[in-house]
Parts: sequence; structure tokens; C-alpha cells
Amino acid sequence: MTRGDLPPAGTATLFQLLRDGRPRTRADLAAETGLSRSTVAERIDTLLGSGLLRFTDKASSTGGRPPTMFAFNPAARVVLAADIGATHAKLAVTDLAGTVLVEQDKKLDIADGPEVVLREVCKRGRELLTRADRTSDDLLGVGIGLPGPVEHQSGKPANPPIMPGWDGFDVPAFVRGELGAVTLVDNDVNIMALGEYRGHWSEYAHMIFVKVATGIGSGLISYGRLHRGSQGAAGDLGHVRVPHDTEVLCRCGNVGCLEAVASGAAIAAKLTELGVPAASSGDVVTLARNGSVPALHQIRQAGRDIGEVLATAVSLFNPSVLAVGGALSQAGEHLIAGVREAVYQRSLPLATQNLRIVQSASGDEAGVSGAAFMVIDHALAPDQVASLLSR
Amino acid sequence: MTRGDLPPAGTATLFQLLRDGRPRTRADLAAETGLSRSTVAERIDTLLGSGLLRFTDKASSTGGRPPTMFAFNPAARVVLAADIGATHAKLAVTDLAGTVLVEQDKKLDIADGPEVVLREVCKRGRELLTRADRTSDDLLGVGIGLPGPVEHQSGKPANPPIMPGWDGFDVPAFVRGELGAVTLVDNDVNIMALGEYRGHWSEYAHMIFVKVATGIGSGLISYGRLHRGSQGAAGDLGHVRVPHDTEVLCRCGNVGCLEAVASGAAIAAKLTELGVPAASSGDVVTLARNGSVPALHQIRQAGRDIGEVLATAVSLFNPSVLAVGGALSQAGEHLIAGVREAVYQRSLPLATQNLRIVQSASGDEAGVSGAAFMVIDHALAPDQVASLLSR
Repeated sequence: MTRGDLPPAGTATLFQLLRDGRPRTRADLAAETGLSRSTVAERIDTLLGSGLLRFTDKASSTGGRPPTMFAFNPAARVVLAADIGATHAKLAVTDLAGTVLVEQDKKLDIADGPEVVLREVCKRGRELLTRADRTSDDLLGVGIGLPGPVEHQSGKPANPPIMPGWDGFDVPAFVRGELGAVTLVDNDVNIMALGEYRGHWSEYAHMIFVKVATGIGSGLISYGRLHRGSQGAAGDLGHVRVPHDTEVLCRCGNVGCLEAVASGAAIAAKLTELGVPAASSGDVVTLARNGSVPALHQIRQAGRDIGEVLATAVSLFNPSVLAVGGALSQAGEHLIAGVREAVYQRSLPLATQNLRIVQSASGDEAGVSGAAFMVIDHALAPDQVASLLSR
Repeated sequence: MTRGDLPPAGTATLFQLLRDGRPRTRADLAAETGLSRSTVAERIDTLLGSGLLRFTDKASSTGGRPPTMFAFNPAARVVLAADIGATHAKLAVTDLAGTVLVEQDKKLDIADGPEVVLREVCKRGRELLTRADRTSDDLLGVGIGLPGPVEHQSGKPANPPIMPGWDGFDVPAFVRGELGAVTLVDNDVNIMALGEYRGHWSEYAHMIFVKVATGIGSGLISYGRLHRGSQGAAGDLGHVRVPHDTEVLCRCGNVGCLEAVASGAAIAAKLTELGVPAASSGDVVTLARNGSVPALHQIRQAGRDIGEVLATAVSLFNPSVLAVGGALSQAGEHLIAGVREAVYQRSLPLATQNLRIVQSASGDEAGVSGAAFMVIDHALAPDQVASLLSR
């Protein structure tokens, strides 16, 4: 973007101040920024014109005409958020505060490939926009989570193991072609971590979110920001070696990987071996809810194995919150109990002093919520606001 | 701080722009900030008065009097940086770009307690200031690294194992009393990580720095910022369990801690057991440099053990750079070779694709350099500049 495309200097500064939601007068804004009253007035007009600001109740005044106040307008645009899994997707339309306006669950098969899956997602997205009384012109952007590694900068899947046909596919270009909106993509665990954090724990600086389902992965928050790592691969705990002797072979080719020992798929396989047939994470959860002792025992042990790896993560990262989500976390307290046992035994006292180990509070909405925040944080950042004003 | 103590709005904005070192005219600054020419002129005068800005060469012009240009002035203030170890300290005075102006090494005993040690550090600090032709009035602040856990917010050591008398001691208050300057404190590994990063790797977003000496610890950089964690305990890898069977008892009370297996102290103990007497990390390094095969063998194995734990750290954090420093890294390539072996074997291919595993480039200056940057980053931040202008 060249200087010529940017809005007049000071506009972004004003908007960032107002994003906290607190209404302000022109005089407040001049005092806070050092911009002249006339410059503030001009920039406010631009922002009002874009819909990003709205008038609010008049300020109380000691006499005369009360001054006009302005505030951030979360209804100015909407976000389409899609949390795409291996066999189903959750879609939602949210406002600019991340509040879900309408949502829908949809079965699909990720193995149908990117064009079939994304075309269906876009079609359902348009329907949702209509249900919310909006059109694709109102889109701030589209946020998508995928069940595999994604190079976040380009939005392209990077060697995803369970997504045939998706490797290197330009997801943002395809979705932009369908809906005409900026599209951001990340792996499902990162968007779940972001959704869980922003929805429930944003008063804390550092969090680790762990998803335990068919696979195992985690997302890290450092100083309120998703730590993606240099290849976007941060949080990949599934193939860390568990710190006790095991010869279990993992699909990745190594032995003793956490995922081969403690994932939903691994527990289902073990239970089947023990004469308690289970084909999926879902079966394991059902068995646990029905009080199957072997299932509860295996889940507890999986919690301990995961906890042993998380103990290292806690010592390294020293989070305030360790949130456990994913299908298996729905099996009751047994998984978390195992995690707590191992983390408290193996982490340093200082690192666990104020640590909260909790079940994910946002449940299955974490993904779409995080996908929406990913778009909002990006598109309303100071260097991006320009494109909203030039429309 | 109340609104009344703040400098006129816009001053901090102008200063943050100029911190990149690039000279600008008043007209440049008005265009970049949206502030009026007269506001810019006033704020620039304030900043010139404080010494934080200086005049530079005139801009070239197509005719008439060329406009005046201004730039950040790194000589405006100095920082006193102290990297305090168990048995010695390194002190330096730097400018606001972190460049070391003068430095000194000094033997001391941390066990003499905080008052004796810090009084000596302040005395030597004053001497260094004199050598640099400055006084304590020129101090932007004092940065101190200590060989144990520190609660960074308060600057107080938190249950440091090898620092009798230091627990909870108000280091910043004591030093401020001696030198009259803002004082920031952190553990030695964090400041080494910061110094190594800012000095050599700041074009990368994420780094892990590991110190291997008498103990083992690490410091994490996320998006260019030191990730301290919620108790300031992030990076504490010394008491992570190594992922293979071992019954070695650690001084912390657990078994199989990395530090009990692979630190300089652990290697010295093993060598002594094998009939090759060694009392310290230094002895181990000397033996290795003299070609002692048992020493080289033990160092290589320590590298592998450290690498097994770092493999988890790499999978979790996905850094671009993994820098190995501390006394034992001076023993040649054997330590790093062991680290590389284990990390490449156990980390995910995606996470090691572009990973650089390197020996620390800043050597024994990492600590003072990082301590200086800790102070500079804090004191020149937008919310802090005020106090420099009101002097």
C-alpha cells in the first residue's frame, strides 16, 4: 500500500482509542491525541461515514448545548467464521465485538477436497448472512479454521495429514473469489485457543489451550496474543515423546508420541483391545458417561500422559491458565484430574503457584469465536483500517 | 501518574516515530502524525530540551533555506547494566542504543547478601560512569540480572536457591536509594536471552536461548518480546524430567530433572566418579579443551539430554533460532552437536524446517547488553517518556 492509499494521518490513532467502546466527545479526542479540534472533526466525519463510529447519548453538560459523543459501532460490519473439522463444520456470522448473531452446523467430508468443501461453506455462509439481514458487502472478512497445519501468512495448508487435496491450496484466494472478502486461515486449535482466551480469560496474560480429541494439539497465548511460531507450527504437542518407556508406534513414524498414547483414537483402540469395542473419541465419551470402568481408567491414564507433557509446557511457558478442550474433555472430570495429577507432580512450584487448570469454558463455540476474533484483530489494526475507509 | 504529569499529547507519538533513528523534518512529522505544524514545532522543542532529540544535517532542498532535521539522540542518557552471577559480576555503561561504552568484571560472592553485593555494584557503577564522563544524573535507569528467580514486576528475588538473604529483598528500592535511578531486575537467563536476541537475531520473531552452566535455564522471545510468563518463571527447563529412565535425584527433591543429569555440575560429578576429577563447569570446559575423551563423551551426552527436552520446547514454541550459551557452550561443538542430534530426531519436520541451532553469538556480553535493553525498552516506551521530559 502506498502513502496515497492511506487515510489522512491521525484517523487510525483516533479509531484505536475508540475501539475500547467508551464514548468520547471531540474535545476528549483532541486532548487525548494532541490533534487540533478541526482535524479531529474531519477525521470523525470520515469514520462516521464508514459506519465504524456511531453517535451515542449526549454528554451531560453544565449548561448550553451538550457536546456530541461518539463510540465504536460493532454493528458496522460482520464477520463470517467457519470452524471446519474432518467430518463437520460450524459456521457463524458475528459482529465486530465477536458476538455470534446466527450460526449453523453442517456435516461435510474434508476429504472431498478444498473446492467442494469451501464452495459449500461459502454457500452456507451466504444463507447465514441473509438470516442475519446482511449481505457479503457487509463482510469485514472471513475467518476459517482447518483441521491441520496451515501457513497462516499465506492461508495455505502445509502437508496436512488428514486433508487429501488441500496441501498448498490457496484457501484465501478461493474464498475471496466466492465472497469478495479478505479471508484469514489458521489451524483449528489456534482459533479455539483464541476464542477460549478472548471469551473467558482475557484478563490473564498467558494461556495454554489443549485440544484432546481424535488428535492432540495446543495453542499458546503470550501477552494476549496468539503465539504462532515461525512456521505457524507452535503448540504441536501431538508428537512429543511421553516421558516414560513405551514402544507404541505413531502414524508419524516415531515411537512414544503423545498422540499415539493418549488421543481419543488411541484410547478407543486400547478399549477395543480390552474387549470394550470403541471406534472413535465419541464412543469413548459415551462409554465414560455410561460409567464404563475401563473407559474411565483409560481416560484418567491419558490425562496423566498428557499432563506429563504439559508439565514441561507449563515449566517452559508459565501460563496463568491451562484450558483443556476437545471432544474428550466432555467425558467428565477424569481427563482433567489426570492432567492435574501429573502437572502438579512434575512442574516447578513457582510455575503452578497460581496456575488454573480448567475445562474449556467456551465448549464447541470456541472455534467460530476465535475465527471471528482473528479477522477482527487483523482488519481493525492501525495499518488495515485504511481499506475500510476507502470503500 | 495523573493526566497533569503527562507531557502535551502527541509528544510520545512523535518520539516513538523518531526512535527508528531516521532523521525527519517538521513537515515530515506533521504529515506522518496528522499533528499541526505548530504543534509539531512545540513538541520538538520539548524533546530537544530534554536532549532526546538532536539536530542532524540539513535536508537537501531545491532552493531556499533547507529545512532543519531531527533525529533520536542515543547519547542523551546512559544505562548502568549489571549481570550478577554467583561468584562474579559484569558491569557496563551503555548508551540508549545499547552500545557498551565502558565495562568492568568484578569478583564477588552472592552469598554475602543483597546489601553488601548491591552496595559494591553501585560503587563500581559510579566509577564506570566517571570513566564514561557521565554522572548518575545522566542515568536513564539501572538494569540488573540475578542468578535466580525474580518477580520482574517488583524486582524482588523469589525463593532463589543459591542466594541466601536475597528472598523478597527490594532490589529496586535499594539501588534507587544509592543511585537515584529507576531500577529493573530480572533473572540472568532472561537478560542473556534479550541481549543475544537484540544483538544478533532481531530480524527473527521467535527465539529460545538456553544457558548451560552450573545450572540449566532458558529464555523465550515471542514476536520480539521476552515472554516472562505469569510468575516470571517461563523458561525454567532445569527441572523438567528427561524423557528416559533415570533415578538421579535432583536437589529440588524430584528425580530425573534435566539439571541433575546434564548441567555442568552434573557432568563434573560424573567425571569425578569416573576417575577424572572435576569440581565445576570451568573444569569440565578445560578438560574438554585439552581433549579428555571422557569429558567430550559426557558433554555430548549432556547435549543429547538437553536436546530431548528442547525437542519438546521446539515443538511447542516453534522458534526460528535456538541459541545455546553459558559456560558449557564454550567447550566446543560437542554440546551443540548433541543438542542438534536429539532435536532433529524428536521434533516435527515442520518445526525444524528452517530452525537454526547455534552457539550464542554474544558470548559473555549477552547479560549486560540484555540488562541495558530491558531498561531502554521500558523507559522509552510511550507511557514512560513523560518522566524524562519533566526533569
